[in-house]
Amino acid sequence: MNIAPRGFLECTGGPGAPLALLGVPFDGTCSYRPGARFGPAAVRDASWSLETYSPDLGADLDGPAVADLGDLELPPGSTERVLAAVADAAREVAGRGQRLVALGGEHLVTLPLVRVAAEQHPDLTLVAFDAHADLRDAYLGEPLSHATVIRRCAEILGPGRIRQFGVRSGTREEFAWMRDRGSLGPATAEGVREALAGGTGPLYLTVDVDVFDPGFLPGTGTPEPGGLDWRGFSACLGAVLGSGRPVMGADVVELSPPWDPSGASAVLAAKVVREILVGLQGLAGA
Amino acid sequence: MNIAPRGFLECTGGPGAPLALLGVPFDGTCSYRPGARFGPAAVRDASWSLETYSPDLGADLDGPAVADLGDLELPPGSTERVLAAVADAAREVAGRGQRLVALGGEHLVTLPLVRVAAEQHPDLTLVAFDAHADLRDAYLGEPLSHATVIRRCAEILGPGRIRQFGVRSGTREEFAWMRDRGSLGPATAEGVREALAGGTGPLYLTVDVDVFDPGFLPGTGTPEPGGLDWRGFSACLGAVLGSGRPVMGADVVELSPPWDPSGASAVLAAKVVREILVGLQGLAGA
Amino acid sequence: MNIAPRGFLECTGGPGAPLALLGVPFDGTCSYRPGARFGPAAVRDASWSLETYSPDLGADLDGPAVADLGDLELPPGSTERVLAAVADAAREVAGRGQRLVALGGEHLVTLPLVRVAAEQHPDLTLVAFDAHADLRDAYLGEPLSHATVIRRCAEILGPGRIRQFGVRSGTREEFAWMRDRGSLGPATAEGVREALAGGTGPLYLTVDVDVFDPGFLPGTGTPEPGGLDWRGFSACLGAVLGSGRPVMGADVVELSPPWDPSGASAVLAAKVVREILVGLQGLAGA
Amino acid sequence: MNIAPRGFLECTGGPGAPLALLGVPFDGTCSYRPGARFGPAAVRDASWSLETYSPDLGADLDGPAVADLGDLELPPGSTERVLAAVADAAREVAGRGQRLVALGGEHLVTLPLVRVAAEQHPDLTLVAFDAHADLRDAYLGEPLSHATVIRRCAEILGPGRIRQFGVRSGTREEFAWMRDRGSLGPATAEGVREALAGGTGPLYLTVDVDVFDPGFLPGTGTPEPGGLDWRGFSACLGAVLGSGRPVMGADVVELSPPWDPSGASAVLAAKVVREILVGLQGLAGA
Amino acid sequence: MNIAPRGFLECTGGPGAPLALLGVPFDGTCSYRPGARFGPAAVRDASWSLETYSPDLGADLDGPAVADLGDLELPPGSTERVLAAVADAAREVAGRGQRLVALGGEHLVTLPLVRVAAEQHPDLTLVAFDAHADLRDAYLGEPLSHATVIRRCAEILGPGRIRQFGVRSGTREEFAWMRDRGSLGPATAEGVREALAGGTGPLYLTVDVDVFDPGFLPGTGTPEPGGLDWRGFSACLGAVLGSGRPVMGADVVELSPPWDPSGASAVLAAKVVREILVGLQGLAGA
Amino acid sequence: MNIAPRGFLECTGGPGAPLALLGVPFDGTCSYRPGARFGPAAVRDASWSLETYSPDLGADLDGPAVADLGDLELPPGSTERVLAAVADAAREVAGRGQRLVALGGEHLVTLPLVRVAAEQHPDLTLVAFDAHADLRDAYLGEPLSHATVIRRCAEILGPGRIRQFGVRSGTREEFAWMRDRGSLGPATAEGVREALAGGTGPLYLTVDVDVFDPGFLPGTGTPEPGGLDWRGFSACLGAVLGSGRPVMGADVVELSPPWDPSGASAVLAAKVVREILVGLQGLAGA
Repeated sequence: MNIAPRGFLECTGGPGAPLALLGVPFDGTCSYRPGARFGPAAVRDASWSLETYSPDLGADLDGPAVADLGDLELPPGSTERVLAAVADAAREVAGRGQRLVALGGEHLVTLPLVRVAAEQHPDLTLVAFDAHADLRDAYLGEPLSHATVIRRCAEILGPGRIRQFGVRSGTREEFAWMRDRGSLGPATAEGVREALAGGTGPLYLTVDVDVFDPGFLPGTGTPEPGGLDWRGFSACLGAVLGSGRPVMGADVVELSPPWDPSGASAVLAAKVVREILVGLQGLAGA
Repeated sequence: MNIAPRGFLECTGGPGAPLALLGVPFDGTCSYRPGARFGPAAVRDASWSLETYSPDLGADLDGPAVADLGDLELPPGSTERVLAAVADAAREVAGRGQRLVALGGEHLVTLPLVRVAAEQHPDLTLVAFDAHADLRDAYLGEPLSHATVIRRCAEILGPGRIRQFGVRSGTREEFAWMRDRGSLGPATAEGVREALAGGTGPLYLTVDVDVFDPGFLPGTGTPEPGGLDWRGFSACLGAVLGSGRPVMGADVVELSPPWDPSGASAVLAAKVVREILVGLQGLAGA
Repeated sequence: MNIAPRGFLECTGGPGAPLALLGVPFDGTCSYRPGARFGPAAVRDASWSLETYSPDLGADLDGPAVADLGDLELPPGSTERVLAAVADAAREVAGRGQRLVALGGEHLVTLPLVRVAAEQHPDLTLVAFDAHADLRDAYLGEPLSHATVIRRCAEILGPGRIRQFGVRSGTREEFAWMRDRGSLGPATAEGVREALAGGTGPLYLTVDVDVFDPGFLPGTGTPEPGGLDWRGFSACLGAVLGSGRPVMGADVVELSPPWDPSGASAVLAAKVVREILVGLQGLAGA
Repeated sequence: MNIAPRGFLECTGGPGAPLALLGVPFDGTCSYRPGARFGPAAVRDASWSLETYSPDLGADLDGPAVADLGDLELPPGSTERVLAAVADAAREVAGRGQRLVALGGEHLVTLPLVRVAAEQHPDLTLVAFDAHADLRDAYLGEPLSHATVIRRCAEILGPGRIRQFGVRSGTREEFAWMRDRGSLGPATAEGVREALAGGTGPLYLTVDVDVFDPGFLPGTGTPEPGGLDWRGFSACLGAVLGSGRPVMGADVVELSPPWDPSGASAVLAAKVVREILVGLQGLAGA
Repeated sequence: MNIAPRGFLECTGGPGAPLALLGVPFDGTCSYRPGARFGPAAVRDASWSLETYSPDLGADLDGPAVADLGDLELPPGSTERVLAAVADAAREVAGRGQRLVALGGEHLVTLPLVRVAAEQHPDLTLVAFDAHADLRDAYLGEPLSHATVIRRCAEILGPGRIRQFGVRSGTREEFAWMRDRGSLGPATAEGVREALAGGTGPLYLTVDVDVFDPGFLPGTGTPEPGGLDWRGFSACLGAVLGSGRPVMGADVVELSPPWDPSGASAVLAAKVVREILVGLQGLAGA
Repeated sequence: MNIAPRGFLECTGGPGAPLALLGVPFDGTCSYRPGARFGPAAVRDASWSLETYSPDLGADLDGPAVADLGDLELPPGSTERVLAAVADAAREVAGRGQRLVALGGEHLVTLPLVRVAAEQHPDLTLVAFDAHADLRDAYLGEPLSHATVIRRCAEILGPGRIRQFGVRSGTREEFAWMRDRGSLGPATAEGVREALAGGTGPLYLTVDVDVFDPGFLPGTGTPEPGGLDWRGFSACLGAVLGSGRPVMGADVVELSPPWDPSGASAVLAAKVVREILVGLQGLAGA
């Protein structure tokens, strides 16, 4: 009998595949609307409405090149234990020589992923697409939060190694932080190219899906009007992939499927993941 | 790293397990509201909110005793090809000596399952829980339909080998058919006991989840007010399991998750599946 | 070509049919959640998932005996003009010698319907199934409201000609009103029989669908826990139909489909309408 | 009494009207999410929120010029019988000298409509707005599918008589097919004008509503990010209507209302239908 | 203990604050889909997902400068009494020297607000963002309706003192009215600047949120495809605020939260309110 | 102007009121579906569809006797800090001599509430209505969880001071724990009376709303089929209130409104709260 696949598209790679896909169903610090824990399952389910072929990149997803590991099992209620489990998993993947593409979950999961990637690549630059600055030092007294994650990453990488695009919400202080460090660039292909041409070393890519306008992606914890459409995002992603700087890891976070009964948000997030996989697979093959 | 399971509860049995669980995501003949194709995935997802322990049956689900095979891959648009694929799969499972518990999909999938079960057990009796008689000879000219499935099964097994419970909708002719053949019994433990005591030989159990009242299970293609609650169904199921007649196969059909955004319908269907698995596992062990 | 019908089930009667069905899509005085204006359309759409045969009444809906007139076109924003239009339509139907079954819309539409019915039948008794007493003298200063409709009807018919069942919400004063006049009976077949045996003359039947428990019918403007299930209601309805007193008109009101995305509420309301039509058709034929 | 209309806007034409509107509630081959069967009813209901006047076209919908025939009654479960019934209906409409505007249902319904139109107009060109190429030769072994419909049409009309706009999803082979035959043009007014200026003869217009971005139209079976907005589509449609080539028939397909609880998708589809009717009525009057 | 605030963002001003925020939960004349009565509550709830800082305006919301008064308590069913209550409240606010920002509720609530504002400022100009012309003289015989409100305002202010932007739906007569009076300008920053430069005196700003495309704001009573996105609206609003003409009052109307289960519509409306408050606070401070 | 109230019904009491109502919007340890953080707001909003009069208790809610304190502001992501904040608030309320009725939030919030109540009343007995045993020692390694809360409370009060009703889900070990200690009684008036007659001292009442069947209350994190209806619960509550043992505090937890778009779950929870307030007010007045 033919059994329908349950992973992401045709991603059937084994331990030796160059790319690994891992779900991280954590949403413990969401301040407004939880549900990102259901993101990985929704992305996998929605992926089956997509083709493996990317017309923008002119390439097919090479299924055996990607090992879909499934979702991490995480303890509810303890942020620290969750972050440690994510870091452990990332180290295990890195130890196998795989590049990791993670599916959130909330944005805080990027912190252990960047930490582990920086262990491997000390000159790593973080490229963040996000509606929010996420640069608070603490949120309601809590230093570990999806509202502080980029600040924590900046402490690991150094503020000069943060490149942000699409930010349209933050406190006065966060906007000042970005202005002072020049971390925020225009969310256009040209803007991305310029920002990445001004530095060196490998990249880590994090896509908080709320960088899209809520009209296109309402299924997220903190929707913020004024975001990108597919065309705008696709152009930016092309600029990242074509920057000549290798992308050593990536994540797509903050899809919160319960808030979009139409399912369109999950399809959009799945298309982002497909494009990243096709893009990284090309880079990994190079 | 610990990966969260994606199958039904802890069902991790292999080819040698006595029970097999198989999704059949087909809804091609639904006359009113489609969506039963998403039933198997919803049951699996919902199963993780349940315990493995059944207080009613006083037993734990024995995970290794059940092999969750996943979902059949089915061609869209051709009823005949789908039914043939289901029959082939059922024969493959039977050939391994496993009893099959199928997750619909619409009620027509019961037809090939009963056909294959009757190949193995010519004295099979069909025990059907359903709000609808499903006894039409054809529906809008179509002999293969979820509105004709019990009639087709009666042609295979003989009308004396049909036992129906919970029917509260049908044409005048369908009610006459049931009255003439005495196939419809009261949906109570006592009613089930009496109906099954009046016959011999093994049973096949089909549960169309619309036997529950739409207040408890709105996520189905053709909700019909006036149905059972959990307590009532559980008592009936206990009477089936305790009838002394072996249950050689079972299915749970017509869950249509898109129509119940609360997800409660999927949890209810998953609890039905858990109880059937726990019950059959006991019988299989006997 | 065969065109699918758009009316209620097979109701295809013309001007000479003994029964008329009319939608009254008005919800202008709803105090909590509007949407009852979409009730008639939802009942018609849902009716196609039902059979024409009623197993409880042992009879088929006689389609040609019922003329489905469609929905009244009503001006938004003016309660008085709406009520006048409803009364005019009811008089037109009465002038053709038809009994009217109206689909709300909110409960206030019962007022002009009862007024016109009482013009024809001065000894009319109102039989009301409802979760709420609807006996306020005014609601936030407004005498015409779905919270005052039974009080207004009592002023027309006299308080001794009101029979209420299923009321479980009201002010202390409304409960006192009911106790003083003995208008509230138990919502059981026995209770209905007793209440109707204690009087004479024809009946008008109004069913506010919130008499059902919100578990079974969440799609209503003011859900109130603790209501009937189908079995309980069906028994009561049977007692009304079997009371020996003719039912000269009826309405089914307060279905508010937007609040129940599962559609189960509309199916339940449609089944109520089917049973009333089958019941009145038998009475009309007698 | 004034009865509210139930058809599309003020479309009240009779058998002699130059345009006919017909619903085709079929979704039997949908591979991902069914529900397009409810499209025609949703378009009619939503149409009442629109004006009859089109500011873009500077003209009013001429209601008596359009006969709303209602929806075809179709048997569930048999693709071939459905397609035959659609072809029969289309021939009946053509025999009355009416141009047909069909409301899907899924995209496969275009196949019999194009077949019949090509019987009348052998030099017909198909103009298709769609997110997907729909050019597979078979889908999971099935040659009749909403994923193969344009390929089947190309076999009828010849590949040189296919003009596609908005396609952003397909296999590598489908994109090669389009490139080899030059069938895919830019989804802009200029692109449409150029594509249509390069040929002669009458047109058949099919609009798969998934050509819109899912942000604007999530209520469809296979949403694909990156599509048109209203302004972009309206400009393209204007170019079709202004091409000087007569539009002999049209359809609007793949609206699947259950997936958009906001109802905005149905309103958008209804506006597309209004513009097509206003446009064809002008052409028909010319 | 720290109690979470329930008002709009940090708006904690008292009777002496220069700005007042008031909800007007009325939707009695909505012709298509009611629910705007829940608008004020949804805007308040959604406001907590926003920052107080506006990057576009480069300023923080000055909470103590805004007194959130809560929602008016309104009688259901009587349009006249509601409008009188709104006018009374507006006069009370004006009497305290506060500028009023009202949260609808449907668009008709603008009528008493403009009436009172015009009492204070006889040379007032109404600036209206809206998808619909709202210029009917009556709607189904009713002169007071959300479809007539701008016409009624024009009778108060004079037709030369109406400036409309974003209108894309209306009758032929309404478009002629706008053309004859030059009231409709392009919905761009440039269009707004030109339109406002051509006049003098203070402004009243009304934003019917259906001026946004339904893709971005489906949660409204009468969605009309083809509208603005955030960027487009924000530019227009900037042009109003920078016109040099004082804005004496404003309202944001027609948010109907039940129709958008994603909640994104409420967030968008709340962001509009935040920008207006930040903008008016700057003007009030000037 | 008349401003509509935003608290629970007419609860307008001040610091000296005998009862205090407090929302605790925490859902950090929910293992399946989050959203209970929105419970308090939903209960307040839904409360306005209810009357202040309880026909079952024959008494009106005495608004000034209840001070609605609003919702605690809680830090996201840290279970320990949240529990400490809840305990502090409870002590502050106790210090004012008020009895506290808390609105969850998830069930873990009961832990600090019971802890503080036991500080005041060392002979306190916990009366728990819940579908789940909540008696695990740890859940996925976490000792503080909504799946362990009753176990933690038993450690504070002693296992002999736990009385559970409605439990129908748990592990084999949890059912053994209950059997060994006799903590689980039948969820009937008789069962409650017997269980409470067998002990002495004051009571703390916790109602996990999943004790209701998901048919009546789907809006909860872990729906479990087979629960109570309103009538059954109301009888049990009457037995608690009439037990002669004072109820020193109470909570109603695990309402998760996002999972029930019909809103019926929130209305049911609000009715539970109303009955508890009316009941405690009588006791407090005694």
